[in-house]
Amino acid sequence: MIQQDLAEDIELKWNWIQKTMQQIGMDGCLLTIDVNLFYVTGRIFNGYFYLPQEGKPFFFIKRPNGLTGKNLFYIRKPEQIADIFTENGIAMPEKLLMEGDEIPYNEYIRLQAVFQPKETGNATALLRKMRSIKTPAEIEQFRFSARKHAETYAEISSCFRVGMTDLEFQNEIERKMRKNGSIGLFRTFGSNMDIYMGSILAGENAEYPSPFNFALGGEGMNPSLPIGANGTVLKDGTAIMVDMAGNFSAYMTDMTRVFSVGKLSGLAYKAHQVSLAIQQEIEQIAKPGTPCSELYTIAAGLAEKEGLSAYFMGTKQQAKFVGHGIGIQINELPVLTPRSKEVLEPHMVFALEPKFVIPGIGAVGIENSFLVTEKGLEKLTIFKEDIIELS
Amino acid sequence: MIQQDLAEDIELKWNWIQKTMQQIGMDGCLLTIDVNLFYVTGRIFNGYFYLPQEGKPFFFIKRPNGLTGKNLFYIRKPEQIADIFTENGIAMPEKLLMEGDEIPYNEYIRLQAVFQPKETGNATALLRKMRSIKTPAEIEQFRFSARKHAETYAEISSCFRVGMTDLEFQNEIERKMRKNGSIGLFRTFGSNMDIYMGSILAGENAEYPSPFNFALGGEGMNPSLPIGANGTVLKDGTAIMVDMAGNFSAYMTDMTRVFSVGKLSGLAYKAHQVSLAIQQEIEQIAKPGTPCSELYTIAAGLAEKEGLSAYFMGTKQQAKFVGHGIGIQINELPVLTPRSKEVLEPHMVFALEPKFVIPGIGAVGIENSFLVTEKGLEKLTIFKEDIIELS
Repeated sequence: MIQQDLAEDIELKWNWIQKTMQQIGMDGCLLTIDVNLFYVTGRIFNGYFYLPQEGKPFFFIKRPNGLTGKNLFYIRKPEQIADIFTENGIAMPEKLLMEGDEIPYNEYIRLQAVFQPKETGNATALLRKMRSIKTPAEIEQFRFSARKHAETYAEISSCFRVGMTDLEFQNEIERKMRKNGSIGLFRTFGSNMDIYMGSILAGENAEYPSPFNFALGGEGMNPSLPIGANGTVLKDGTAIMVDMAGNFSAYMTDMTRVFSVGKLSGLAYKAHQVSLAIQQEIEQIAKPGTPCSELYTIAAGLAEKEGLSAYFMGTKQQAKFVGHGIGIQINELPVLTPRSKEVLEPHMVFALEPKFVIPGIGAVGIENSFLVTEKGLEKLTIFKEDIIELS
Repeated sequence: MIQQDLAEDIELKWNWIQKTMQQIGMDGCLLTIDVNLFYVTGRIFNGYFYLPQEGKPFFFIKRPNGLTGKNLFYIRKPEQIADIFTENGIAMPEKLLMEGDEIPYNEYIRLQAVFQPKETGNATALLRKMRSIKTPAEIEQFRFSARKHAETYAEISSCFRVGMTDLEFQNEIERKMRKNGSIGLFRTFGSNMDIYMGSILAGENAEYPSPFNFALGGEGMNPSLPIGANGTVLKDGTAIMVDMAGNFSAYMTDMTRVFSVGKLSGLAYKAHQVSLAIQQEIEQIAKPGTPCSELYTIAAGLAEKEGLSAYFMGTKQQAKFVGHGIGIQINELPVLTPRSKEVLEPHMVFALEPKFVIPGIGAVGIENSFLVTEKGLEKLTIFKEDIIELS
């Protein structure tokens, strides 16, 4: 069930969950959502992972066929778990952690009927908190993604042809991403966060408000996916923001660079420089213990000081965050928002994305992925940061 | 809020839901899941759609900014809905339909606290049933997707180069798909059904069991997405099954064709012919009123008669269905499975996919999208169906 090379990393995660269960007085943790199963086992399966407060976990598998391991049981339906517990003398948990923010209501009710706990707790909140602190093996995967991500961004200029639309440009970039090993799937947290591989925003489309909680919007190519490129012709004087998911491993880096067709307005270049200044200031002050809200305050404060508040993180709709944790999903914890109660901790990995939307021109700014170290921030996504002129 | 050209189609859907609510004695229907919101409004938004048993619906919008229309209210949180009901003299529903198979548990509980219904019913089940019968505007979108899907499949042979891997081949096919207007995002129902744009299965990889409930599996390129191509070299004697989502509109067609490098074994060609024979037999007998279980029985029966049961719908793991409804999501109702209680109805659209996995060679078979008409089946995805030899 557990691959040998991941065993140490995975036991570390089990220990974290068990230690927390002991602190908050919970008896067991039941997981069934794919990203959480991947987190605690290193693989995706259809079934359930049950970790008691002490001892080894149990695996209840519906699919795929052929898995083997200690405490592994094949089932057709969750009701069989109760019998397996009885037959194997496993104690039923009185206080059970379940993924309350992820499992659909009816399925949750069905699982409650199987386990009949006296009390349930929120495994989603616990796992999201835990997943925000990355393990050594996870950090290695970020480094791999970041390297591939940057390598691919170095090929973006070669994708451009005069007269292209944003969609044509994006298609060529997607091809490079896949060629360099992008897994493609862009995982998000929350039921209303759809996107395909990433977004390219050019010209007026950058102002288009989206229903999704990404930093910026865009009309998209169809009302069923209102985000990103919409067929805008990349004409002279247009800024093109490229923000593709760096999913070259299960751990995604997030990275944005801005390209231009010809020269942009002075305001666009100024706003881009302010984004770089925001990044620089945050790189200088951020370290373990820094409140995440402070990072937002710095960014919004600099934007205001430069008279750019009306363009900061959008125009018609402005995002109220300037960065977010990344990992198996693109929107992990912490969130760099004024309402955040979180502080930076060692081995958090987050994307910082101060951006401005300049009406009629497009979006400018920067996004990089950072690892929080004991001393401060380490930038993972290394590639030139000025606006790159296409030709 | 509702685009003029969709108004008639959308009112038809509202009327269906209201008629059903009257029949089953429910007072209102609350929807918040993106695909359902798209179904009843023609757009994706972050918020809630509330349809009383009689009269016009109400729209409660969090994002995007800038929408206007009758009965449209901007909110920050669902708790505001109760006040809006009171202020506007809207009756609180005592019996409320909610998306119990889709909304996460905690969010469902929160919404229950807002509406405090005496009774809730399953809007997911109702909507999935309703969505299985397509409206005229939806059928037009399927026709559009099918045409683009077939046009793109005609370009697949040109994507092949000797010595390629399945992933390289897939990347070239993806590029054609996107060039021809694929929206990219592959929507599925259920929390454990991940995939990126489609799958290419070649050689031994076709036998690899997947955790997902798609017809076939494949190892995939990373443990975080165990489905589809895995880097198999496309060498002489390999069958390559191409099964990419036809999402050229919001309504996806599903279509599979098989390509070969050089010649395949006799067993592979035989099994492919049996797939075509299964399709032909089903095309002849299926019409409104035909039980969906019967379509599975025909397919499995023909496979058995030809001595191919061990290869039918997989080897190490065999799917227990031979087709499925399609639409905004790839796995809609009905399901062509032996356990199905459903019968075909006019304006259902489904994919029929009798397939065989031949050890060491790959997967063979066919998949097409069909519209159920008053008289029988109409094939939407028209393209040659024999195994196409690549060179």
